[in-house]
Amino acid sequence: MRALRYERGRLRIAETEKPRAAREALIRVTLAGICNTDLEITRGYAGFEGTLGHEFVGVVESAPDQSLVGQRVVGEINAGCGACQLCRAGDPRHCPRRTVLGIVGRDGAFAEFLQLPIENLHRVPDEIADEEAVFTEPLAAAYGITEQVRLDRQTRTVVIGDGKLGLLCAQALSITGAPITLIGKHDNKLEIAQRRGIETVRLEEFLASDDLKRAFDVAVEASGSASGFEIALAALRPRGKLVLKSTFHGDTSFNAARIVVDEVSIIGSRCGRFPPALDLLRRKAVDVKSLISEEYRLADGLEAMARAAERGVLKILLRP
Amino acid sequence: MRALRYERGRLRIAETEKPRAAREALIRVTLAGICNTDLEITRGYAGFEGTLGHEFVGVVESAPDQSLVGQRVVGEINAGCGACQLCRAGDPRHCPRRTVLGIVGRDGAFAEFLQLPIENLHRVPDEIADEEAVFTEPLAAAYGITEQVRLDRQTRTVVIGDGKLGLLCAQALSITGAPITLIGKHDNKLEIAQRRGIETVRLEEFLASDDLKRAFDVAVEASGSASGFEIALAALRPRGKLVLKSTFHGDTSFNAARIVVDEVSIIGSRCGRFPPALDLLRRKAVDVKSLISEEYRLADGLEAMARAAERGVLKILLRP
Repeated sequence: MRALRYERGRLRIAETEKPRAAREALIRVTLAGICNTDLEITRGYAGFEGTLGHEFVGVVESAPDQSLVGQRVVGEINAGCGACQLCRAGDPRHCPRRTVLGIVGRDGAFAEFLQLPIENLHRVPDEIADEEAVFTEPLAAAYGITEQVRLDRQTRTVVIGDGKLGLLCAQALSITGAPITLIGKHDNKLEIAQRRGIETVRLEEFLASDDLKRAFDVAVEASGSASGFEIALAALRPRGKLVLKSTFHGDTSFNAARIVVDEVSIIGSRCGRFPPALDLLRRKAVDVKSLISEEYRLADGLEAMARAAERGVLKILLRP
Repeated sequence: MRALRYERGRLRIAETEKPRAAREALIRVTLAGICNTDLEITRGYAGFEGTLGHEFVGVVESAPDQSLVGQRVVGEINAGCGACQLCRAGDPRHCPRRTVLGIVGRDGAFAEFLQLPIENLHRVPDEIADEEAVFTEPLAAAYGITEQVRLDRQTRTVVIGDGKLGLLCAQALSITGAPITLIGKHDNKLEIAQRRGIETVRLEEFLASDDLKRAFDVAVEASGSASGFEIALAALRPRGKLVLKSTFHGDTSFNAARIVVDEVSIIGSRCGRFPPALDLLRRKAVDVKSLISEEYRLADGLEAMARAAERGVLKILLRP
């Protein structure tokens, strides 16, 4: 089968063997999405080698549980060892021996087929189109912030970055009723949030304003840049919470005294749960279709990856 | 009166006017303690100029409330504006217009007299000696961690640093029943914690051990060094909480991806409340006397500051 692989520092379209999933489900990928993490991997992040991709929707071809066959599914990306305390408690997201689809020790979704444990799969309701279902994983990650930080109508919240992650976070968090402000650089992207009733501020406006500094209870850094971290910190009130969402490569530096004196919390946030995300998609509570920039054929995967890395581009989809 | 002042980049013993406290209490300082923050100020931290010192015990000489006169007191160091939302809610610790004793806009405790609002004062119970009462402020700061992070018998907690702050944190947190491990470099200091039933580990032992990495629910960085931050991070399990306690000067750098992938939280922590600290001292629940290295006369303040900056030295007291 065809797959987009990263190996020995090189990205290429390869012919590989179809996964042989004796104890897992085999899934024919219908549509996959390129995430910044995929781009980071091609810059050396996580040391991963293999088939890239972890955002997908597909159809089950074979599975230990026959009732799954033929079902349209999305899949949680962490596959735990099944034996440790975390896995037995039903949450393999931090299992130390986990594999992660297209990121750690497991071939990913930029291929005609992939395999995953059946526990990871979630049936996609008919009301959700493939072009929406493919956003389940990043939307779950965005909405997962609410598992870690309590947001309500009183929680002044700012999201830094108007890329696809920032736009998903702003929309997902606005469901809580919290007043959300999105800070970004691109009018056309900020408009996507405005159409959902989200307040937006251009970066230069934020930098020039005194009223917006030290004004927010929660700041979500979703820009993927170290400068986004500084902006988030500047936006927070004392005792505010800075949610670190994007896995930007390399180190960032911070002023420890500022964090201690203002008693700020920094909260790393990675993966969320799929059922609430599927529910949001089913209810059309989040506009994900506006986040699609272009669709490529898997055969044109190299071109697709190059396009996804360009500034101003939102979600690039790959169709096998 | 005599005071130890830091002005125009220079530390000196000066003759200054006695504070004229019309609407505040005037306090004759009996004993004061040198904190690392005082040393940081003489390296440019916080841009403060004036009389140093924020840890003290003293006797009220005059006050708007006559019943206070003659009382032995300690004092909370943040003096709020009294008008903002935070101050009206009874917590001036983050008032944006606050002054802070010997740190921000208010002369401090390394003097014969100081002044503070009467709301800041707490009477010292007779059972507490001056040599113990002078630890109220740093002990409150250590115990203040429990306001921000829930600790119970199941919370595996590690404290990094066997200096005076680390020894206070380890002792204060062990009151919660949480199993505490103190990591340090000095046998004589680790012994102070051992005498209180706290498990201790030498730094090189921690670095060489696999069992102690990613093993703790909560890590408190109290070493005052950027390397302490790295050690705390290495000690934390996924979703663990790193409490940043010391205001080390300058920037530290961290790997954002580690914090996001492991969903670690970093929590800045500064000042605590005095009543619980006074209660701990009254009950002799914490051994503070072992933390005293030496006592100097205020007149020898320059020598005392130099001594406090030496490696291996614990608390240096100043007596006016």
